[in-house]
Amino acid sequence: MAPVTGLGEEMHALVERLYPLCRSITGDGVRATLDIVGEYVPLQVHEVPTGTQVLDWTVPQEWNIRDAYVADAAGNRVVDFAASSLHVLGYSVPVAATMPLSELRGHLHTLPDHPAWVPYRTSYYTPEWGFCLSQETLDGLPDGDYEVRIDSTLADGHLTYAEHVVPGQVADEVIVSCHVCHPALANDNMAGVAVATYLARELAERSPYYTYRFIYAPGTIGAITWLARNAERIERVKHGLVLACAGDRGRLTYKQSRRGDAEIDRVLRHVLRTSERPHDVVEFTPYGYDERQYCSPGFDLGVGSLSRTPYAGYPEYHTSADNPDFVSPEALADTLAVCREAFAVLDRNRRYVNLSPYGEPQLGRRGLYESLGGRSDAKQAQMAMLWVLSLSDGEHGLLDVAERSGLPFDAVAAAADALCGAGLIKA
Amino acid sequence: MAPVTGLGEEMHALVERLYPLCRSITGDGVRATLDIVGEYVPLQVHEVPTGTQVLDWTVPQEWNIRDAYVADAAGNRVVDFAASSLHVLGYSVPVAATMPLSELRGHLHTLPDHPAWVPYRTSYYTPEWGFCLSQETLDGLPDGDYEVRIDSTLADGHLTYAEHVVPGQVADEVIVSCHVCHPALANDNMAGVAVATYLARELAERSPYYTYRFIYAPGTIGAITWLARNAERIERVKHGLVLACAGDRGRLTYKQSRRGDAEIDRVLRHVLRTSERPHDVVEFTPYGYDERQYCSPGFDLGVGSLSRTPYAGYPEYHTSADNPDFVSPEALADTLAVCREAFAVLDRNRRYVNLSPYGEPQLGRRGLYESLGGRSDAKQAQMAMLWVLSLSDGEHGLLDVAERSGLPFDAVAAAADALCGAGLIKA
Amino acid sequence: MAPVTGLGEEMHALVERLYPLCRSITGDGVRATLDIVGEYVPLQVHEVPTGTQVLDWTVPQEWNIRDAYVADAAGNRVVDFAASSLHVLGYSVPVAATMPLSELRGHLHTLPDHPAWVPYRTSYYTPEWGFCLSQETLDGLPDGDYEVRIDSTLADGHLTYAEHVVPGQVADEVIVSCHVCHPALANDNMAGVAVATYLARELAERSPYYTYRFIYAPGTIGAITWLARNAERIERVKHGLVLACAGDRGRLTYKQSRRGDAEIDRVLRHVLRTSERPHDVVEFTPYGYDERQYCSPGFDLGVGSLSRTPYAGYPEYHTSADNPDFVSPEALADTLAVCREAFAVLDRNRRYVNLSPYGEPQLGRRGLYESLGGRSDAKQAQMAMLWVLSLSDGEHGLLDVAERSGLPFDAVAAAADALCGAGLIKA
Repeated sequence: MAPVTGLGEEMHALVERLYPLCRSITGDGVRATLDIVGEYVPLQVHEVPTGTQVLDWTVPQEWNIRDAYVADAAGNRVVDFAASSLHVLGYSVPVAATMPLSELRGHLHTLPDHPAWVPYRTSYYTPEWGFCLSQETLDGLPDGDYEVRIDSTLADGHLTYAEHVVPGQVADEVIVSCHVCHPALANDNMAGVAVATYLARELAERSPYYTYRFIYAPGTIGAITWLARNAERIERVKHGLVLACAGDRGRLTYKQSRRGDAEIDRVLRHVLRTSERPHDVVEFTPYGYDERQYCSPGFDLGVGSLSRTPYAGYPEYHTSADNPDFVSPEALADTLAVCREAFAVLDRNRRYVNLSPYGEPQLGRRGLYESLGGRSDAKQAQMAMLWVLSLSDGEHGLLDVAERSGLPFDAVAAAADALCGAGLIKA
Repeated sequence: MAPVTGLGEEMHALVERLYPLCRSITGDGVRATLDIVGEYVPLQVHEVPTGTQVLDWTVPQEWNIRDAYVADAAGNRVVDFAASSLHVLGYSVPVAATMPLSELRGHLHTLPDHPAWVPYRTSYYTPEWGFCLSQETLDGLPDGDYEVRIDSTLADGHLTYAEHVVPGQVADEVIVSCHVCHPALANDNMAGVAVATYLARELAERSPYYTYRFIYAPGTIGAITWLARNAERIERVKHGLVLACAGDRGRLTYKQSRRGDAEIDRVLRHVLRTSERPHDVVEFTPYGYDERQYCSPGFDLGVGSLSRTPYAGYPEYHTSADNPDFVSPEALADTLAVCREAFAVLDRNRRYVNLSPYGEPQLGRRGLYESLGGRSDAKQAQMAMLWVLSLSDGEHGLLDVAERSGLPFDAVAAAADALCGAGLIKA
Repeated sequence: MAPVTGLGEEMHALVERLYPLCRSITGDGVRATLDIVGEYVPLQVHEVPTGTQVLDWTVPQEWNIRDAYVADAAGNRVVDFAASSLHVLGYSVPVAATMPLSELRGHLHTLPDHPAWVPYRTSYYTPEWGFCLSQETLDGLPDGDYEVRIDSTLADGHLTYAEHVVPGQVADEVIVSCHVCHPALANDNMAGVAVATYLARELAERSPYYTYRFIYAPGTIGAITWLARNAERIERVKHGLVLACAGDRGRLTYKQSRRGDAEIDRVLRHVLRTSERPHDVVEFTPYGYDERQYCSPGFDLGVGSLSRTPYAGYPEYHTSADNPDFVSPEALADTLAVCREAFAVLDRNRRYVNLSPYGEPQLGRRGLYESLGGRSDAKQAQMAMLWVLSLSDGEHGLLDVAERSGLPFDAVAAAADALCGAGLIKA
């Protein structure tokens, strides 16, 4: 794992700032989240009205909540939304009633196996109300009547998502997508949001080859909305990465695209392997985060997903234990570093054509050997030139050259630059 | 191995009934065999005249035998066809002579390594006569003259084979082929005949997708005759299985088709692997049973072969020790079960097209989640639906889905049915 | 390794004879070398004028040398070209001067890690002069003035290479290429020259299928010159082998062509594997000997390279320790044997078409079984016939048959001959 850097601490601070907001798939919590992200990178915020048809789905009513609690007979709030946005079932319909505990129990969600933790639950498409609390709290409640109140609204409004674009040398795009719909959970997914945001800032300084489009959207319905509204753009999307669960202390996990051999898959495998980080590469499954939508068979985009401990792979997943302490600055910095390295490779992975393909060209005559004089990596640089010449047949990209030669991608890319400069190859 | 079932006992009884008949590649023994099989499933019996050109071969003369023996000077039959049809060399020309043991020895076949067993020998295409006996019997014969008599006929007649067809929903066919030319041998191949026959009975109750054609024919020349007479049918034969040595106590062996990646190969590999039976999958070789003919390069059909201990892989092979005791009801039932499971997969292995391929369709809105409510396998069923949707691109069949997802084929097929019903995919 | 044979001793004698000559990429040393080789096989010698454009290169001036030495104040030659042609930097410009040791040192090359050995150094394309000597010799030189003299000429002349052709039944060619530019080094590459030469003699006695062209040329510039002058021939070159470092006592190493799956690659892998020799098969790299040129992407020929210890893989490489003692007759004979076996496979690796592809043809009727009667390998021969029939679909060559069946290539080729003779297959 990369050493702690200032960036790790900065990203962690962003996670802490975003963490408490009550996000859902619509509503003001998403807007507040995007307002904060907008302080780091300029965002184009989109508001899509309730009822809009998006692919097979319809944008739902907007949900907002001001207060919610369960109070005992003495008026003490034994479960209180103000303490954590997790305490209310996401998309709860409003309720104001008094009922005995026996009746209330049917609306209470706990985690008996982790009695101190509060679960995260939602009911987006079935009208329902409920509270989430720890088993310990529930066990401490005496029988009797309780006042329950959820001051929420479900009404026509909008679904909110945002984009940030880092313009590249070409119109072909790389999308980086992260979900912004989870309330007080840190790793899932304010960590992904933080890494994406810092990645966007770095890329802007690099004048990248591809145009990089960052998508901040609620899970599932948000990605579907983006896809529905960008039908004409899809063919320009050449690669993509979903960032989720990006800050826990576990090893990195790259989940491949549905295609399995997309360029983004090859790049991530290469970078993770050659960097010698402990990591896992797993096959695509049609379950997880928004790679499900980007990789649906009609689109079948080359979009993979980078996480640390994968989806549902840690007990803290979707519970109050996924709090800012569960996320580490070192892990955030390490995830950011892998993204940086991967996009550096992706951005330079051109295919070249050898313009002097019959026999080896005389490198010495062109000063390409002398240019290496005295460099400690002169031999490696020379080998990289020979490899690039050998494989520049229009069929192999520089990543192929790096993998086949065993040379570092950077050395291969530098050789390609030198050979391009000498007029021996062209992209 | 599957538990003993009534079916295993029934098949074993059929093996015992068929066992003693003196079969060869032609003649009344084959007819008697088919008469008995015809009591279980209706057969269409074909009689092909001697001299008929069949591919590169010619239907030979028909061989029949009434009696054969070697008698000592006292008139005692020391080798007697009446005791076992193995005792006479198959296709022996008639002989009636008296000769000293020294001369007779050239016509006697034994197994010195297994002195109590009688070998099985034939001479179909070279005129010859002979007797097979145990080494122990031979060792007990005193010198002196012996009467030898083989009351056989070789004359123009017919080659006999039979078919039984289980009609399917489509005209595309699966052939199941077993050889019926071996005399008093049980595993090779009355066991194959018994399994094929009970399989045919089961399939008829299932209204299968494919049309299943069962072929009962003498080895080599029989399969060649069937192929020669069914030239117009071959393109309808999509899959096939040769059943041989189907009842010994060894592990199952699937021999792949010449193509190696035919659908039948993938299905058998899948079923054997996921059923966790001990088994072997072996490559095609152009030696063995009638898969040799079906897989000859001009036809190259997707026909594999299912056995237990493979061809010539057990010492009892082609000897009197391959008797009904060598075959077990449990093994017969187990082979039948694998066939049943394999054809259930083959029959449902459609390719579907996702009619809503852009993003995931909203399953909840269509009641596809609610339909799972309370089922213990609800999560698996949901995953199966997502996998089927993801891979229904016209390129992947349900077996691909099962293999890639790791889900049971049955769950995948059920998901496909549900999605079809909801109009989300079509075959 | 094959037992010592007369051939091994003969080849070693040739290495010893060629060893002392002062070869370079041009000049009389190459001519003298080819004169000697020409005593073994007739050579067509080509002289290409200085300044000729060959692909991306230009034929350089011709270098010749008569004498060179460093003499001490007493006139004693402390470094003397007459003792070994290694002592002078290849392509040294002439020099005649007296200078102190301190100044001379800049022109002296040693191997501090191997103080008794003299290195091999050249400066083909940068005008330079210098001497190579042992570190021990250098350490023994007292300070003071030394006379240095190199009586060389660099002048317009020719680049010399030679060809020997063994005509085949077809015009398609196999090239066997070895570099002839290294001075007093034995394994690199007089061993390759010796093996090539004896291979040519053997092939001539065999009336091979392919036309075999042996190329004796200086490294890099020689192969480039040959390629430049044979543009129209290239499409006839179907296979090739570079022979280098062919006589040391290490295990055999086959370096695959750039294509990796060229027929020559498959043949060498097969022969090395089935012969059970210890060996390595390594991937193509664009560094090494003249496979670099033949496999450059514009040509991309199916040319591999056979060595024993590979390029630069032994400490004696490019030093005076690579002398005739470093080369063994056994190793030379073993390399020759592998070439012989490989070309025997390559030469017979036809694709056949089964003329009776529907079902098995009746081999007995054609006497193909009887022809095997009594042979100890009758069963293998029969299996080979069945395998050749099965795979003679125009897609598989005899090497495919051997690999898939596990039968010896010779048995497969003999079966193909028999089946051809019976009119059952045709090439």
